Amino acid sequence: MFKKILIANRGEIAMRVIRTCKEMGIKTVAVYSTADAESLHVRFADEAVCIGPAPSTESYLKMANIIAAAEITNADAIHPGYGFLSENAKFSKICEEHEIKFIGASAEMIEKMGDKATAKSTMIEAGVPCVPGSEGVIPDFKTCKKVAKETGYPVMLKASAGGGGKGMRAVWKEEDLQAAWESARQESKAAFGNDDMYMEKLIEEPRHIEIQIVGDSNGRACHLSERDCSVQRRHQKLTEETPSPFMTDELREKMGEAAIKAAEYIKYEGAGTVEFLVDKHRNFYFMEMNTRIQVEHPITEQVVDYDLIREQILVAAGVPISGKNYYPQLHSIECRINAEDPYKDFRPSPGKITNLHLPGGHGVRIDTHVYSGYIIPPNYDSMIAKLITTAQTREEAINKMKRALDEFVVEGIKTTVPFHRQLMDHPDYVAGDYTTKFMEDFEMAAPEED
Amino acid sequence: MFKKILIANRGEIAMRVIRTCKEMGIKTVAVYSTADAESLHVRFADEAVCIGPAPSTESYLKMANIIAAAEITNADAIHPGYGFLSENAKFSKICEEHEIKFIGASAEMIEKMGDKATAKSTMIEAGVPCVPGSEGVIPDFKTCKKVAKETGYPVMLKASAGGGGKGMRAVWKEEDLQAAWESARQESKAAFGNDDMYMEKLIEEPRHIEIQIVGDSNGRACHLSERDCSVQRRHQKLTEETPSPFMTDELREKMGEAAIKAAEYIKYEGAGTVEFLVDKHRNFYFMEMNTRIQVEHPITEQVVDYDLIREQILVAAGVPISGKNYYPQLHSIECRINAEDPYKDFRPSPGKITNLHLPGGHGVRIDTHVYSGYIIPPNYDSMIAKLITTAQTREEAINKMKRALDEFVVEGIKTTVPFHRQLMDHPDYVAGDYTTKFMEDFEMAAPEED
Repeated sequence: MFKKILIANRGEIAMRVIRTCKEMGIKTVAVYSTADAESLHVRFADEAVCIGPAPSTESYLKMANIIAAAEITNADAIHPGYGFLSENAKFSKICEEHEIKFIGASAEMIEKMGDKATAKSTMIEAGVPCVPGSEGVIPDFKTCKKVAKETGYPVMLKASAGGGGKGMRAVWKEEDLQAAWESARQESKAAFGNDDMYMEKLIEEPRHIEIQIVGDSNGRACHLSERDCSVQRRHQKLTEETPSPFMTDELREKMGEAAIKAAEYIKYEGAGTVEFLVDKHRNFYFMEMNTRIQVEHPITEQVVDYDLIREQILVAAGVPISGKNYYPQLHSIECRINAEDPYKDFRPSPGKITNLHLPGGHGVRIDTHVYSGYIIPPNYDSMIAKLITTAQTREEAINKMKRALDEFVVEGIKTTVPFHRQLMDHPDYVAGDYTTKFMEDFEMAAPEED
Repeated sequence: MFKKILIANRGEIAMRVIRTCKEMGIKTVAVYSTADAESLHVRFADEAVCIGPAPSTESYLKMANIIAAAEITNADAIHPGYGFLSENAKFSKICEEHEIKFIGASAEMIEKMGDKATAKSTMIEAGVPCVPGSEGVIPDFKTCKKVAKETGYPVMLKASAGGGGKGMRAVWKEEDLQAAWESARQESKAAFGNDDMYMEKLIEEPRHIEIQIVGDSNGRACHLSERDCSVQRRHQKLTEETPSPFMTDELREKMGEAAIKAAEYIKYEGAGTVEFLVDKHRNFYFMEMNTRIQVEHPITEQVVDYDLIREQILVAAGVPISGKNYYPQLHSIECRINAEDPYKDFRPSPGKITNLHLPGGHGVRIDTHVYSGYIIPPNYDSMIAKLITTAQTREEAINKMKRALDEFVVEGIKTTVPFHRQLMDHPDYVAGDYTTKFMEDFEMAAPEED
């Protein structure tokens, strides 16, 4: 087993990893930018190394500094958390070259799954259902037109290197195709320095449902059922739940099998997530695979009694998985509490938390790195806490979330607590009747107090 | 179902009851003394009524004020929490007379189980194993001598109205009996205004193991397995766990059956706890029954997925129980975090909490009523929080507790956090090898920092 793990991350996920390491008796090294000197991960790790100034590119993304920190502290493994270097093939390879175990996917795996078009053709080979469309990159407009006809309108043009909605165009009829093709390529070139495009059938009433998987070094994988992440705003997940209110036992079996097939085909090692789009007829299509731990992993832990970070560490150390699949025994919901003003188009609200009171009690879990007096730096992600409730039924988990949100007091900054509170009363959410389009029509009601 | 519940208590248990009421859609009324105006239970209840000045006798024990508060707010039920009026037969009766449902035992039940000697003779009738000794109150010293001989030394003399160790004497041989008899009676008279004494066999290497039960208005009861509360200091529980490391499946069955027998014999309605002493041969003896929710109830909730406060409310509203028993699926430990200085004989340390950071993450539950800036009044119980960890195994729950205690930051006052941290490393505790005598030999190691 590893003796010392360096956590190449910050915020709640750094705290999350430190917690499991402590529970496993593994020493920890925190790294931090000068903006994070007062962060809890610095305080609670056994050692802490400053790796540079506030901008991520000069600290949390600075591979040489992180490797140096691991070497001077004699860390034998690096946990990358999510974001930053967690899906960076080069960093995974550099770790390997320095004989430091990267607790994540190999460079080869990340390269295979990181590029969306390549991932898709791999999954087609593996026999995993994919959205009909082009086979990889479309070479020219003529082919584009042909593929669109074969796929059947409506279709979606997507940048291979894309993300966050950039370089994407929905096209409902052939006469709009050329204009979309050109503008999407221009946008992709500008955003990613690459204008490779691919095409997919546009999925109507789509739900974003993902399957958590864990693979081991023997090439075996298991699944831990689904998470429904359809409540998104501009492709950013806001709240997640498991089980999905849209799920059936039959669909779960099928999607679980497909996710295992995907993982085993590429001999995936570690914790990963296979994201699917599910249409209104419960057809499901591979979307992408995340080769890292995800923000929303706690809801899975809550309903299957499983510590995913612990499992990542065990698998990285060569311990084989049991092979059995895990099914939700309870219902769990996560609300991402962000330092954003939901009344002002969710604009970031960094600053000092002058007063903080976190909810507690039966069925409430909080993962956070903030405290009363903490100053949220403007440089990073705006998430300040994950509030997770767990109960026997969905209705109870929602009721628990409402009372927990009512207890959640943050003063000094704006947060998304009021958004989640309103969401938990929204009739469509309460009915479990929502798709990835849900937020397009959502409007905040006026605040209760003045 | 009740529309509005008044919580005749303060502190974490008031918060605990408010939380479940909110989740059930029941309105709440907090009552508070002037010392508790800034308490969270006042803030989070739907309504709050001041019922008097700081001393409990003028507020939380003042029945007329509480009944008046219930009447002016139209509360249809009162939850008494633990302590204060929770086992007060008169209060239960007054509630009944005012047609306010008392969420607890009836006056008759409280009277039956509140007096230890009466409780014991009832349990003997019910066929529940009791510690050998006198049948009820010992009329005179001559009888005392005879009973001691029949029981067999060592014996324990106990005040009928006793509690907290007052009026108790262990006697190892006949020549010491008379002195013990006289001094115990004097002490009891002074403490409780009553010098009735009874006698029990002294149990060697005793463990305090209690069974949680719930009974309904049909006279049916179920059990929710045990809690081991042997780690006590001067009869005050410090930490509790479930399952008990001393338990066997066979013993759990027998003790569970005995507890159900006890509850059903007296047609017990509500949540209650049957406390047993278990000797080193795994013989168990009825000690007492608590006709209320207990401080340590959350560890049971954690391992059987059951909300005991919800169940209390449902049963009080006439909903029958399912009848099945509940067995621990996980391991859970509770540490009572008190505002006491463990380095100075646990003396109370009231005052202002200048900084508070609570642990969180996977498997951690906190029940508390305090926050950064909260001033702990000197008038009440010193408990400021319950820290509960839950995991698949005892070892994991202990490791989780250690890391959670390491994260627990309270500044401005002294707390028992360092005590619990040392306890979790104590070889006998880690081995699960402890009795109610454990704390007699426990000594705090020097603090780590200076």
